[in-house]
Amino acid sequence: MVETSGAKKSPIRRATIKDVPFILGFIKELAEYEHEPDKVLCTEEMLEKTIFGSTPYAKVLIAQTEEGIPAGFALYFYNYSTWNGKPGIYLEDLYVQPKYRRNSYGSALLFALAQELVEIDGGRLEWSVLKWNTPSIAFYKNLGAMPMDEWQTMRVDGTQIAELAKLSPGILE
Amino acid sequence: MVETSGAKKSPIRRATIKDVPFILGFIKELAEYEHEPDKVLCTEEMLEKTIFGSTPYAKVLIAQTEEGIPAGFALYFYNYSTWNGKPGIYLEDLYVQPKYRRNSYGSALLFALAQELVEIDGGRLEWSVLKWNTPSIAFYKNLGAMPMDEWQTMRVDGTQIAELAKLSPGILE
Repeated sequence: MVETSGAKKSPIRRATIKDVPFILGFIKELAEYEHEPDKVLCTEEMLEKTIFGSTPYAKVLIAQTEEGIPAGFALYFYNYSTWNGKPGIYLEDLYVQPKYRRNSYGSALLFALAQELVEIDGGRLEWSVLKWNTPSIAFYKNLGAMPMDEWQTMRVDGTQIAELAKLSPGILE
Repeated sequence: MVETSGAKKSPIRRATIKDVPFILGFIKELAEYEHEPDKVLCTEEMLEKTIFGSTPYAKVLIAQTEEGIPAGFALYFYNYSTWNGKPGIYLEDLYVQPKYRRNSYGSALLFALAQELVEIDGGRLEWSVLKWNTPSIAFYKNLGAMPMDEWQTMRVDGTQIAELAKLSPGILE
């Protein structure tokens, strides 16, 4: 049983390597919710290396119950705006397990990221949402988020990366 | 006079703090091209602090002529994919001055980023383009880039950040 007052009692903490099994579980559950369960190639070993290794590429916050049980997470990294001349935060994944919803854990994670953004003197908090996920878009707009309708994200991945890399003239240090 | 063979002779190098005036100039010219010249709040001091200071939030590659004159730049940072369990590269700004175009500097910058992505064992190269910029979108698709049509980017900025931060329950270290 989760207290609805849990979110007000500072349930947000930074993840440690011991949280890796929970983090991978959350990643897989979120991919299922996004109708893409087969897209998760990530393993515990990859999370340990890329997030808790010598070069951390992302940061993780955990929302936990008063009993200390991880209920959800936010995985994010710093981005950069050349217009602002400042860093920002890009929220890659936000997820709270269904049984722990309606306890404000999701909002608390977003608010904690806004706190961190203020602490680094950052300018923007950004994330992406699937266009069919209208309940989430409404929730985000209610928090003051704007859809970036004018911009189109482009992506190169898979074997095409190696094809382009072959054409590189090299990088002088 | 720029040799058209310039791009094949490894004109890509990492930026140093001495490039800051060129970088700010490129940022401002790109914002003009994007019809948003008044959005650039960035200064040389901000670039020195956020890119060449103790905590670098972005990286910069410079494309230069054979005479060593900066002709364009790519400003980027590492992002992260939870599906891949790997970092990626997000290209924030790509710009080549009009007088130096048609020399493959833009392609060379993109290819150099693909090279760096391979070196960090990354999975994706991503960037955003204005939807009205159809020539650029065609150029990118020709390189193998896919538009991420299913996703909507959301953003919170300005004073709303501080409003959300006030609601944070705090972050336990």
